[in-house]
Amino acid sequence: MREKTFVLAPDSFKESMTAKEVCVAMEKGLRKVYPTANYIHVPMADGGEGTVQSLVDASGGQIYTKEVMGPLGQPVTANYGILGDGTTAAIEMASASGIHYVTKETKNPLITTTFGTGELIRECLDKGIKKIIIGIGGSATNDGGMGMAEALGAKFLNANGNALPRGGGSLDKLARIDISALDSRLQQVNLIVACDVTNPLCGETGASHVFGPQKGATPEMVRQLDDNLAHYADIVKQQLNKDVRDIPGAGAAGGLGAGLLIFTQAVLQKGIEIVIEYTGLKQKVADADIVFTGEGGIDFQTKFGKTPYGVAKAAKEAGKPVIAVAGYIGQGIETLYAEGIDAVIGIVPGAAELEKLLAEGPQNVERTCENIARVLRMAE
Amino acid sequence: MREKTFVLAPDSFKESMTAKEVCVAMEKGLRKVYPTANYIHVPMADGGEGTVQSLVDASGGQIYTKEVMGPLGQPVTANYGILGDGTTAAIEMASASGIHYVTKETKNPLITTTFGTGELIRECLDKGIKKIIIGIGGSATNDGGMGMAEALGAKFLNANGNALPRGGGSLDKLARIDISALDSRLQQVNLIVACDVTNPLCGETGASHVFGPQKGATPEMVRQLDDNLAHYADIVKQQLNKDVRDIPGAGAAGGLGAGLLIFTQAVLQKGIEIVIEYTGLKQKVADADIVFTGEGGIDFQTKFGKTPYGVAKAAKEAGKPVIAVAGYIGQGIETLYAEGIDAVIGIVPGAAELEKLLAEGPQNVERTCENIARVLRMAE
Repeated sequence: MREKTFVLAPDSFKESMTAKEVCVAMEKGLRKVYPTANYIHVPMADGGEGTVQSLVDASGGQIYTKEVMGPLGQPVTANYGILGDGTTAAIEMASASGIHYVTKETKNPLITTTFGTGELIRECLDKGIKKIIIGIGGSATNDGGMGMAEALGAKFLNANGNALPRGGGSLDKLARIDISALDSRLQQVNLIVACDVTNPLCGETGASHVFGPQKGATPEMVRQLDDNLAHYADIVKQQLNKDVRDIPGAGAAGGLGAGLLIFTQAVLQKGIEIVIEYTGLKQKVADADIVFTGEGGIDFQTKFGKTPYGVAKAAKEAGKPVIAVAGYIGQGIETLYAEGIDAVIGIVPGAAELEKLLAEGPQNVERTCENIARVLRMAE
Repeated sequence: MREKTFVLAPDSFKESMTAKEVCVAMEKGLRKVYPTANYIHVPMADGGEGTVQSLVDASGGQIYTKEVMGPLGQPVTANYGILGDGTTAAIEMASASGIHYVTKETKNPLITTTFGTGELIRECLDKGIKKIIIGIGGSATNDGGMGMAEALGAKFLNANGNALPRGGGSLDKLARIDISALDSRLQQVNLIVACDVTNPLCGETGASHVFGPQKGATPEMVRQLDDNLAHYADIVKQQLNKDVRDIPGAGAAGGLGAGLLIFTQAVLQKGIEIVIEYTGLKQKVADADIVFTGEGGIDFQTKFGKTPYGVAKAAKEAGKPVIAVAGYIGQGIETLYAEGIDAVIGIVPGAAELEKLLAEGPQNVERTCENIARVLRMAE
């Protein structure tokens, strides 16, 4: 009998397991029933948290750390990855400038900066990287990517020719952007931004109004930040001849989307599509009998670009069945069946507190996958 | 293509769904994937709570109610069932004399009585019943079945020829048992006792020591009750020429096991075996492609005579695969695979409090069974 091939392409289970750990637990369970099957691990992500880890794991790359400036100016140790090809890097902006670096007391989008994210980009350029994949979710910032650009040599000056203080709160004083010292390597490097939001830079659906409050902005601060980003966009248009204001995604990550479009050769792309491409998922799925995916939670929102949806789309193109496992099954999973997620099975063994379930994730994935395999074998 | 046949043989999910309700939820889920399959409902039980309902549901019988004496002498409304054949009744002693009728404050095995259970038996005799199946779990009593026998005409007298007060606490005064007025129909009726314990009447592993404390007995009361049951056994041996003291199961339900052996033509049998027989499970399983079972909780203890184990044994004899669903999956389920439970799948959708899960049982069983069916179809 031909051996079966299982492709294991889960996302991480947040606060419980990395995607790679989920793959390992899945295989442990399935292998009890199919001991000689082929298991292909494709740890996934959707452009959000875990994307660097996923791309590194899937490509046989490596994680590096670098001390950079955190969102409040403090030193933080950020991770980035270099993929197995040695020429592609992966960055998560949150690793340098993320919301987890500020507290309820210190969060203040008037002063938080993306400088550290720029330092990570510069580090990649220094290492001779040709392509940078950058995930921009989870930011603490609302500076339009000013800090990021500064770290790469741009100067943001007031009417007196002095550098502005860091943070989106000072952009109202912006008179001139000097890009004469901007790192020239930025024009050669291929920069792919994982971005699932379509918000413009300014206005009611812009960065400040939509994402400002969760970063600590009061209604007054939201108005101020929005005005500042509008002024910034005006200056950019006048002096750099780039009109980024209404580009979908310009408002992502407090306007870092706009900043990357202004100062680099960035292309915005859906996170899950990037991960599918750089993990080689489609080629791997072509060999599968069944594809397993999963995520901490699965519900109707899964179809808005989350990993199990992307995996299912890729599997469906190849005509392969998909089984998803999840720690939380929410409303509307029946809408996922038509998207190619053929079955959704929960891993939770009973009434329990979240903390315990998070700790027991691996054994619950393993047990569930073993029993799914037992059902599969039953029908063969 | 030949239509599939699914036999649905779950126990109840305690405090959430009757076995019949579980069958309905299972079919709803499976039918979304196999709309034209045959669904055979066999609501099960293991001799404990839900046994009457299961036997009635499986046979197309009917539930009746009768006001009888509760364990503390209070009136209670008890249920019993008459099976579809019209000549077999099913009783749960707990419905008349159960622990749920006493509170933390009122529980006192010195005075609780099985009288109401005897009234239910008498009611069945009055209705011309030829066979009584009686489940004896969940008792509040420790009276050796004295109350039950009194309700059927036996007299328990002290040295002065006066009737003893009710409850096992008075059996030390027992001088004579008068069975001259004992209901003669008891010698004709076929009485099958669902009993999964093998405890003798007296001693360290007897009724009082093992089950007394959970009925409210202090250590002193345990000693007293145990001495009293020993005295009772002596009197029975002398006067009625029956030696029940060491019969396995005599100590069940505070010695009601012994009482039934003394005063009726009772045969003790494993609960699940009785239910399998009277639901016709084996014949139904013979037609199945796959058998579904389930219970509120499944763990290593399941193999000690619980419903999914019994169902799996019956299915295995017929060479049929078994899938179990459960609200709680505990330790040791891997030991069940060899017993014929081929797969165990949890129904819980995520971290949640027990109360919410109990309320949402039907939708969780439905969703889980739909998705199991989706996995089955995948492998066809």
